Amino acid sequence: MVPHFLTALTGPLLDVERKLLDTTPRIERWFRLEWQEHTPPFYCSVDLRNAGFKLAPVDTNLYPGGFNNLSPEALPLAVQAAMAAIEKYCPDARHLLLIPENHTRNTFYLQNVQRIQAVLRQTGLAVRLGSLNPEITAPTSLELPDGQSLLLEPLVRRGARVGLADFDPCAVLLNNDLSAGIPDILRGLQGQVLLPPLHAGWAVRRKSQHFEAYNDVAKRFGKLLDVDPWLVNPYFARCGQVDFQAREGEQCLADSVDATLKRVRAKYREYKIDATPFVIVKADAGTYGMGIMSVKDAAEVQNLNRRQRNKMAVVKEGLEVSEVIIQEGVPTIETVDNGTAEPVVYMIDKYVIGGFYRVHGERGIDENLNAPGSRFVPLPFAASCNLPDSAGSPECAPNRFYAYGVVARLALLAASLELERTDPDPSRFG
Amino acid sequence: MVPHFLTALTGPLLDVERKLLDTTPRIERWFRLEWQEHTPPFYCSVDLRNAGFKLAPVDTNLYPGGFNNLSPEALPLAVQAAMAAIEKYCPDARHLLLIPENHTRNTFYLQNVQRIQAVLRQTGLAVRLGSLNPEITAPTSLELPDGQSLLLEPLVRRGARVGLADFDPCAVLLNNDLSAGIPDILRGLQGQVLLPPLHAGWAVRRKSQHFEAYNDVAKRFGKLLDVDPWLVNPYFARCGQVDFQAREGEQCLADSVDATLKRVRAKYREYKIDATPFVIVKADAGTYGMGIMSVKDAAEVQNLNRRQRNKMAVVKEGLEVSEVIIQEGVPTIETVDNGTAEPVVYMIDKYVIGGFYRVHGERGIDENLNAPGSRFVPLPFAASCNLPDSAGSPECAPNRFYAYGVVARLALLAASLELERTDPDPSRFG
Repeated sequence: MVPHFLTALTGPLLDVERKLLDTTPRIERWFRLEWQEHTPPFYCSVDLRNAGFKLAPVDTNLYPGGFNNLSPEALPLAVQAAMAAIEKYCPDARHLLLIPENHTRNTFYLQNVQRIQAVLRQTGLAVRLGSLNPEITAPTSLELPDGQSLLLEPLVRRGARVGLADFDPCAVLLNNDLSAGIPDILRGLQGQVLLPPLHAGWAVRRKSQHFEAYNDVAKRFGKLLDVDPWLVNPYFARCGQVDFQAREGEQCLADSVDATLKRVRAKYREYKIDATPFVIVKADAGTYGMGIMSVKDAAEVQNLNRRQRNKMAVVKEGLEVSEVIIQEGVPTIETVDNGTAEPVVYMIDKYVIGGFYRVHGERGIDENLNAPGSRFVPLPFAASCNLPDSAGSPECAPNRFYAYGVVARLALLAASLELERTDPDPSRFG
Repeated sequence: MVPHFLTALTGPLLDVERKLLDTTPRIERWFRLEWQEHTPPFYCSVDLRNAGFKLAPVDTNLYPGGFNNLSPEALPLAVQAAMAAIEKYCPDARHLLLIPENHTRNTFYLQNVQRIQAVLRQTGLAVRLGSLNPEITAPTSLELPDGQSLLLEPLVRRGARVGLADFDPCAVLLNNDLSAGIPDILRGLQGQVLLPPLHAGWAVRRKSQHFEAYNDVAKRFGKLLDVDPWLVNPYFARCGQVDFQAREGEQCLADSVDATLKRVRAKYREYKIDATPFVIVKADAGTYGMGIMSVKDAAEVQNLNRRQRNKMAVVKEGLEVSEVIIQEGVPTIETVDNGTAEPVVYMIDKYVIGGFYRVHGERGIDENLNAPGSRFVPLPFAASCNLPDSAGSPECAPNRFYAYGVVARLALLAASLELERTDPDPSRFG
């Protein structure tokens, strides 16, 4: 189950990992204090890339859809963390409404929903599924591979509350990232807790705002540990007015790619890293690995052919891309069964509950792995993330996983800051 | 790892277990609400006995000493639960003082201390060990089997605070049950959190007070589930003035044994249980399985020979027994590797974090297993306690373990009530 690491690592990252292990109590106390000031999202998954010389988050998902990929060991941790979360948001809750994505034919996704439902049930909630899908006009049973089934029901709005025909929940948990926009039926809810809040959806959220918040978190963390924040932080830039079809905004894109590559090159020189820097160009809003390019030179974004432009122009739900983030590419040195791999860490509330590797057999170490053909290898991450072996060397698996848990929680903390800063109703955070 | 269950169980217990599984959300919500009213002890272990026809706690330990017997899977759960607990008691804590038992030559016990220290370290605390042992007058290093070591240091009192020479902790965690009495150095602490409070120690605590509180919890739980509380509750009685050496109080003992056996016999008839009722006679204060008798007839306690009287007269630390609890004996139907077995469930804060089986090859199903010759079989309890398989039958292992987790938490809740009721300073619970 434990993946083979391509190489015995040396250089700066080992220094950071050694430091994480040696200063665990200080790090954990720092998180403990941060969580007194900031509220973590209900749940979150973070894609990490381990370059050997740096370890950084590259994507932070506030509607994690891979609970089915977690190993069984992760489930008790998930239940325990969900108990803590529910207790905070609605301590006397009896009913929770879970709103999944609309793709009802994706069996893997449905198993994810089943997992979330099972975890929440164990926290003392009756959990039912409400669908935003206009095709669901009556209760609809969906078969699962294990012979069980999921019952999707149409949402019903009553005054300032949303629910089902015979179900008035205290809390509403979205597992739908609202790429298609904020549905009216969810606007202006009162007396119900909506998790995560509407502005966490891709209709409002921007990756660049997340990584701006992450910048601040990484800086403070770097100060705490006396390390260069770049070792856990990818550089990024942003272009706000891009129209791939009309070829508008190409100059901003080229300039930003160039500027970011220059900054990365300087760091590579500083750390004597013998590799070619690259950046990832992707939609500032959106998910699902669509609209993503790996670029090594500014010229590449100025000469996109029609196929490339089409690919970049839209992401999920036909959402048009006009805002773009240019993010320092972090190569991965990890492989699982000869496939290129990157770790995905799952959290509920402020707790790391597990993770898995996303593995792609046909992609390179400098490419996006969230693409058709990828598979998932569950890992008993959690055991390792919470309990490093302080006597072992940094590259031994439990220690590496502890480091992953720390960096993933930095991104989680950044998500908290991001949601505070972008909240249209800041009174919420008092 | 999963123990063999002697028999495919039928009868009342299966009914209860089925009910526990079917009403999981209701049970978990009930616990959630209870924990809003009551504060769980920092940690707790509960000995359970599964008779097939009933499942009940027989001992609740507020200074659990077997963390070393838990499987590695339990550790991340322990860390997560300890994080939640520390956050509650002293959110900005940096230093914690752990006070272990005095038996410094018991390697198993020292490994337990090492485990607790490792878990707490992961919550962001610097943890050091302070000893009540008068022989520890200077920092003393104790070797552990894994080559690591524990550093025991003498306690230092400064005003209303206790610590070490160069260590002023925010919190003091006792893993010493104070059988020898409350030491002056721990009295009247101010500005420090002492966990658990002094009156949880055996100098003050009485088993009968615990089981009185458990009575109330079992009654309410029975009402919640519409089941006979006896199915999770052992009857008990108490004699306050017993002197085994002077043969005083024998009549109270005989009468209580008789009365308790009568009540149990009536229940056995009601449920058509074909077995001979027995009671366990043990010290009302104290631990470690000393001073324990299994009795089937009142006459047995009236004709104790000198050896038996000597055995009953003192428990740990030479504490004299004068108060006695007479508890309904719950036979165990569980075996592990042909040894008689009983489950021990571990909790931190309000969370089940794991457990193990206490196994004894030479003891019968109606005898105390906490005796020389017992061994421990760790079980991946937690996975099962929190996540029952609602499709499986009650006697399948995960479901049984969920039931164990529920009943153990009933005892945990009873311990909370008990500590509230016996608190010399009730303002603590507002």
